Amino acid sequence: MKFIVRDIPLKLMSASVMLNPDDVSELGLVSGDRVKVVDHKKSCIKDVHIATEMLKRGELGFCKTSGPCDMHVAEGETVEVFPVSRPNSVDFIKKKMTGKKLERDEVTAIIRDIGDNMLNEVEITAFVMANYFQDLDFDETEWMTRAMIESGEKISFDRDTVVDKHSIGGVPGNKITLLVVPIIAASGLLIPKTSSRAITSASGTADTMEVLTNVTLDIKEIQEITNRLGGVIAWGGSTNIAPVDDIIIQVERRLSIDPKPQLLASIMAKKGAIGAKHVVIDIPVGEGTKVPEIEYGRELANDFTRMGQRLGLNIACVLTYGGQPVGRAIGPALEAREAFMALESISSSPKSLTEKAVGIAARLLEISGKTRNGTDHALKMLDSGKALEKFREIIEAQGGPSIQKSSEIPIGDKTFDVIAPIDGSIARVENSRLVRVARAAGAPRDRGAGIFLHKKGGHHVKAGDVLFTVYAEKEWKLSQAIGMIEREPPLVVSGMILESFPTERIL
Amino acid sequence: MKFIVRDIPLKLMSASVMLNPDDVSELGLVSGDRVKVVDHKKSCIKDVHIATEMLKRGELGFCKTSGPCDMHVAEGETVEVFPVSRPNSVDFIKKKMTGKKLERDEVTAIIRDIGDNMLNEVEITAFVMANYFQDLDFDETEWMTRAMIESGEKISFDRDTVVDKHSIGGVPGNKITLLVVPIIAASGLLIPKTSSRAITSASGTADTMEVLTNVTLDIKEIQEITNRLGGVIAWGGSTNIAPVDDIIIQVERRLSIDPKPQLLASIMAKKGAIGAKHVVIDIPVGEGTKVPEIEYGRELANDFTRMGQRLGLNIACVLTYGGQPVGRAIGPALEAREAFMALESISSSPKSLTEKAVGIAARLLEISGKTRNGTDHALKMLDSGKALEKFREIIEAQGGPSIQKSSEIPIGDKTFDVIAPIDGSIARVENSRLVRVARAAGAPRDRGAGIFLHKKGGHHVKAGDVLFTVYAEKEWKLSQAIGMIEREPPLVVSGMILESFPTERIL
Repeated sequence: MKFIVRDIPLKLMSASVMLNPDDVSELGLVSGDRVKVVDHKKSCIKDVHIATEMLKRGELGFCKTSGPCDMHVAEGETVEVFPVSRPNSVDFIKKKMTGKKLERDEVTAIIRDIGDNMLNEVEITAFVMANYFQDLDFDETEWMTRAMIESGEKISFDRDTVVDKHSIGGVPGNKITLLVVPIIAASGLLIPKTSSRAITSASGTADTMEVLTNVTLDIKEIQEITNRLGGVIAWGGSTNIAPVDDIIIQVERRLSIDPKPQLLASIMAKKGAIGAKHVVIDIPVGEGTKVPEIEYGRELANDFTRMGQRLGLNIACVLTYGGQPVGRAIGPALEAREAFMALESISSSPKSLTEKAVGIAARLLEISGKTRNGTDHALKMLDSGKALEKFREIIEAQGGPSIQKSSEIPIGDKTFDVIAPIDGSIARVENSRLVRVARAAGAPRDRGAGIFLHKKGGHHVKAGDVLFTVYAEKEWKLSQAIGMIEREPPLVVSGMILESFPTERIL
Repeated sequence: MKFIVRDIPLKLMSASVMLNPDDVSELGLVSGDRVKVVDHKKSCIKDVHIATEMLKRGELGFCKTSGPCDMHVAEGETVEVFPVSRPNSVDFIKKKMTGKKLERDEVTAIIRDIGDNMLNEVEITAFVMANYFQDLDFDETEWMTRAMIESGEKISFDRDTVVDKHSIGGVPGNKITLLVVPIIAASGLLIPKTSSRAITSASGTADTMEVLTNVTLDIKEIQEITNRLGGVIAWGGSTNIAPVDDIIIQVERRLSIDPKPQLLASIMAKKGAIGAKHVVIDIPVGEGTKVPEIEYGRELANDFTRMGQRLGLNIACVLTYGGQPVGRAIGPALEAREAFMALESISSSPKSLTEKAVGIAARLLEISGKTRNGTDHALKMLDSGKALEKFREIIEAQGGPSIQKSSEIPIGDKTFDVIAPIDGSIARVENSRLVRVARAAGAPRDRGAGIFLHKKGGHHVKAGDVLFTVYAEKEWKLSQAIGMIEREPPLVVSGMILESFPTERIL
């Protein structure tokens, strides 16, 4: 059937068009079904929704969508619409549900159809769940990774020694990328780092870097700056690198699950697409991270290494301590400031931050063949000020202002100190509660919001000491954070005697 | 945050509101997240979508939705919006994913949250998939059934002997409800039958009945007509009986799966909510139905009976032949006409139709204690014309016209005869191809479209005999159906020698 296009200023979750209910029924469809929209040059798969009064019969409402469809049709143009039957890839998903191994073509078809908006959320969820319950073997995971790489753009560089790092996440305050990238770039290797924004955390690396400079770079800019300076820290969402991975992550996030084959493919696809040859993977271990037990961390490390061999990537993994925040700052501006300060002076910075950043940079320098003593080399880059200088160059190349001192970086001016109620020591630090408080205070949207820890796990405190300070940009968000701290204290101070039985009080 | 309501004439898949992108971000949300919308009297959970230009900051676009929210707000009214955190029921779904047995409260919370739009499609799919992979035991299935009943309205009747029937589906042409209901009602029992419309079939019972009369009845009308005449045939979708079941079925349909606990709960909840005491369940067995193997049919029959005991329902199951269509007609008007004709004269009707309808009516009469010889009793209702008279009364009570003869029922005037190419016999009848051809011809939307089978499986044919006739209301749909028949013939005629080897032709 033919339709006249009407522009609809909505941005829905998936690529969508709106039709009059009578036309939907004439086409034999129900709301949520897929159609192929065709104009004189292009075609695109869209979900159909029903517009009850907005559209006359014969009119098609074209929504703005961030989906994979790059079709542009103008108001008043004519397009043709065809119902689309269920793609074969749904049968392949059902095959996996029964536990059978998929063929290469079948895995590729599923990933391609996700990229082409041929599969809806129900079907994509079924795929993720099938992988959760039935697992994928190394063949299937490799095919999935390769198909994900092919689903988007790829980058190549002038020099061969392209390296990268990735943290699988879960630890608050993990701003090490802002140290690792300048150390590596100052050492003469290429590190085109793309990072994500916070989804459930208080600040993603892209959010933290955005405090200092622009992070929305396209592939050409990433390529140019990396070739010239050795590194960038860009927001991955502004590129079209392995876009199918991002669609799958949306589903995983809703269920907070991350089946291993998906975790492997996700990371390897992003690294493969940017042409990295040597990659260090940071696997934080501890309560509240993706790896609560060290045994699972070792298993993952093994799998990453094997998958790397299949894909021609040289992989090294490091299991890191994830039981409490890295450094003391949580939230975009506080973290940016802490990272900048560590580049200014390693000696006045938290050891957990510099030790981890240097450790990971060292492994990159070693596995890429740059040096046999990575730690000394990395420390030299910090101590000599070369890493700081490189960081300033990268900030300016990405479009940011010149920053002289870390203290110039503005943080929230509404603050609240949380006080130790008794003498004792910090018996528990709850990562997830710290994140929730920082988010309640406004992070990551309010860049200056977050938490600064004056005390960390194991430290001794006196009643009245400041445990941590909450920063906010807005008074009401600060109150919201304070309310949350009262309900769920993120730091617990206790003496050695926790409880005493029987519980009658001695008067 | 407070917002001014703007009416948006859209009907999306789920209960939704639209906000300006800056407000979405200010609330710390992304598209697809849930919010609680509160006005002075009510509150409701909605999905958030982004309106790029349509709405100013501080405005909230309220969409028309068929969702479970019955909040009505007027243009210009003020509402307040709160982000909603992930409900506990997601944790219970994840518990089921790990294979643990759920508590009663946990099952109830999941079903209640689905009904309250607290769970999105990803989470509901995860629940269905968890049941597919991990199964539910009888306790969990019973709790799910009871929670589904509580999710909607319930009906009660003047008399105690309320009976019902249900076909689990998959066979084309299964119009037996149009015979069973008048037979039972004429016998003095109550049978308040709610039926579905076609989703993937050529005609649902509600579509077939709608050819003759109105089927959109509310609960009061169902109650009143059943009390007065003994029975109705209404569209279940117009009532609010076990609405959560319909939401879950939407997900299952996308994946064409139907995990057993869901199948059991779905049917039992619908029957429980309308207050049925005695229920016969028709389990068609055969290729292309939900029960390809008779062993699974027996297992289901057993499970239905046990679940009935737990819920206080007296259940009888019949396994029926589902290898080819019931009767000869497929499509709403053709089926309505065939059913009406069977009520007029049992002897000139297809034996597959009358034998099945009488068999199921007979079991209902027996298990409800009405008679010990149900078959004789049911046949008497047909032969005496009492069932036909009752059917006419029901049609008129539901708002339909008086129908004197079956031949008055109009069918499609565009027809095409499919001819036997050779002498032989009907070696194969493909249910699913017949359905696709009937749908291509316009069924169920075009009421007069469908197929009439002149020959069925096993019949002998001569070259040139008419195998079946396709009916349509529109020429282009008839052509579409003819094209499909050429690609995928639904009836296969062959001689006894199927193939001969070696395959060189003898010249």
